[in-house]
Amino acid sequence: MPKPSADSNQSTYQNAGVDLAAGEKAVMLMKDAVTGTYGPQVLAGIGSFGGLYDISELGHLAQPVLVASTDGVGTKTKVAAALNDFAGIGQDIVNHCINDILVQGAKPLFFLDYVAASKLEPEMIATIVSSAATACKQAGIALLGGETAEMPGVYAEGEFDLVGTIVGIVDREKIITGQRIKAGDQVLALMSGGLQTNGFSLARQVFGSRLLEPFGQHTIGQELLTPHRSYLDTVKPLLTKGLTTGMAHITGGGISGNLPRILPQGLAARIKTGSWPVPEIFKKIQTEGKINDTEMYRVFNMGAGFLLVVAAEQLETVLQQAPETLYHVGEIITGDGVSFV
Amino acid sequence: MPKPSADSNQSTYQNAGVDLAAGEKAVMLMKDAVTGTYGPQVLAGIGSFGGLYDISELGHLAQPVLVASTDGVGTKTKVAAALNDFAGIGQDIVNHCINDILVQGAKPLFFLDYVAASKLEPEMIATIVSSAATACKQAGIALLGGETAEMPGVYAEGEFDLVGTIVGIVDREKIITGQRIKAGDQVLALMSGGLQTNGFSLARQVFGSRLLEPFGQHTIGQELLTPHRSYLDTVKPLLTKGLTTGMAHITGGGISGNLPRILPQGLAARIKTGSWPVPEIFKKIQTEGKINDTEMYRVFNMGAGFLLVVAAEQLETVLQQAPETLYHVGEIITGDGVSFV
Repeated sequence: MPKPSADSNQSTYQNAGVDLAAGEKAVMLMKDAVTGTYGPQVLAGIGSFGGLYDISELGHLAQPVLVASTDGVGTKTKVAAALNDFAGIGQDIVNHCINDILVQGAKPLFFLDYVAASKLEPEMIATIVSSAATACKQAGIALLGGETAEMPGVYAEGEFDLVGTIVGIVDREKIITGQRIKAGDQVLALMSGGLQTNGFSLARQVFGSRLLEPFGQHTIGQELLTPHRSYLDTVKPLLTKGLTTGMAHITGGGISGNLPRILPQGLAARIKTGSWPVPEIFKKIQTEGKINDTEMYRVFNMGAGFLLVVAAEQLETVLQQAPETLYHVGEIITGDGVSFV
Repeated sequence: MPKPSADSNQSTYQNAGVDLAAGEKAVMLMKDAVTGTYGPQVLAGIGSFGGLYDISELGHLAQPVLVASTDGVGTKTKVAAALNDFAGIGQDIVNHCINDILVQGAKPLFFLDYVAASKLEPEMIATIVSSAATACKQAGIALLGGETAEMPGVYAEGEFDLVGTIVGIVDREKIITGQRIKAGDQVLALMSGGLQTNGFSLARQVFGSRLLEPFGQHTIGQELLTPHRSYLDTVKPLLTKGLTTGMAHITGGGISGNLPRILPQGLAARIKTGSWPVPEIFKKIQTEGKINDTEMYRVFNMGAGFLLVVAAEQLETVLQQAPETLYHVGEIITGDGVSFV
């Protein structure tokens, strides 16, 4: 199918299988949001296929290492489609990706998105991509390119998928692996405010068709769509000062599935439940779904969206210097895995 | 859902929503193929979230620019699913991406994949990812990471989508934009051997449920699944010698949609139909679908999968030095757009 290219700055946006006029309309609607993420590193207008990102200014790094990750938002797309609300889902995928590479100490550089559906409406594409652009702009990264595809028969009617890829950079000696974590280190949590992008299969099973029922100031569906936040602004200054020995982004698998991924052999984490505020939505899911604690902490972040491990002697410094409230939720001990006490 | 991580070298492979045992089985099945793409630049085993690619050896570039592109394979996935044949589709997406950034003169560095379906079988995931690994290895790039997602209800039963992201690098002064193209330059074509990854909506419409009918030595379906080839090996030596002024990867939109994307204002291309061999499958699609020439050349590559523009005085040199047969298919003239003569 023809690839609309209304503007050279937008030309890395491709629209496969989408009606030409619809594709051009989508590009027009999202153009300002996307170009608003471009810094001087983006060589816009001189290439019309892949996005171009100049890294020559990064030459001060002793041994630059690119960090890349691809991810989706899972069946959070089903909630967005059911509510016809796409304003936050672009932020979800961008911030999910930013956090995924942040745990390795990477500074994000640019992001690319892929949106596919049974049918793509220009307004829907533009809302999703503009939402992604908002998160990119907030993080200071470029929305360098993307692809939209209309694939009737592959996607169920009215459904869509959203995939993102992020590329960041880190100096090799600054890569955070968790290998410096030692027994006695303390675990701090940053609050997620919601499900982020995991546990939607279970949440949808619990609520079924009740997404429009009231919940607090809005509905259950809107609460579930609370955008995945970025932890970059809070973590970056701590990282610069070398104040963390390891980080975990609490995605699918919860604390018990993600924290062990960074722990050196022979170390475990003891997490004190009740030491941070669990958002109401998780309590509602647990009560109505009659789900036990183990399962809840295995599927959901339970409000603790991102964990920082810090040396005991730096605990007070980190708590004081962090630009937001951190919760002291546990400690590193000898052993294996994660225990909740 | 828990993220299976059977091996630290494989830990950038995530499996969202996929049963733990199935995820581990898939990782086991594809492990050797994926790690076989790792060169010394891949820092495997020291990080467990994003993939790590050391670019410090690229410090000889005066002004390094990253080139990135995300793409899908469109509804070629429907043919693969219908035939339960996933052996080539991974090559499709890798090579499509390689060619997309090759037109800008970029050397590919690494690739990430995303596979999502209504239901993911370990053997299917492993076949697709191993197929991608085959193409990565052939091109000398790393299959740095990926994600699989099982999303029943989002994908129609038995269907899947496959998305790829590539990152390459080029020295800023070596970026090919097409701006050096001038009237009198000649157009050469590299043969695709098939549909590549475009025009599948129309091809499927023409053949309907007749994918298992004989075609040559195999079936129509198998012919349609002919993998998208990479043009890297043939183009790279010509690029190194500065023998091309512009390149176009003939994807959706055909020659008429893609070649103008690189032509400077005021220049057009005159393409001589009949100057290269059009594969039988296109003739069959045209005859059985009663499709006119304009439409055929707008939707399909018609066998000319990649175009090189070269200065007239270098035409003979390029034809002689190219490691495969190039077809002299046209020339650049003053004007606008593409005309077929």
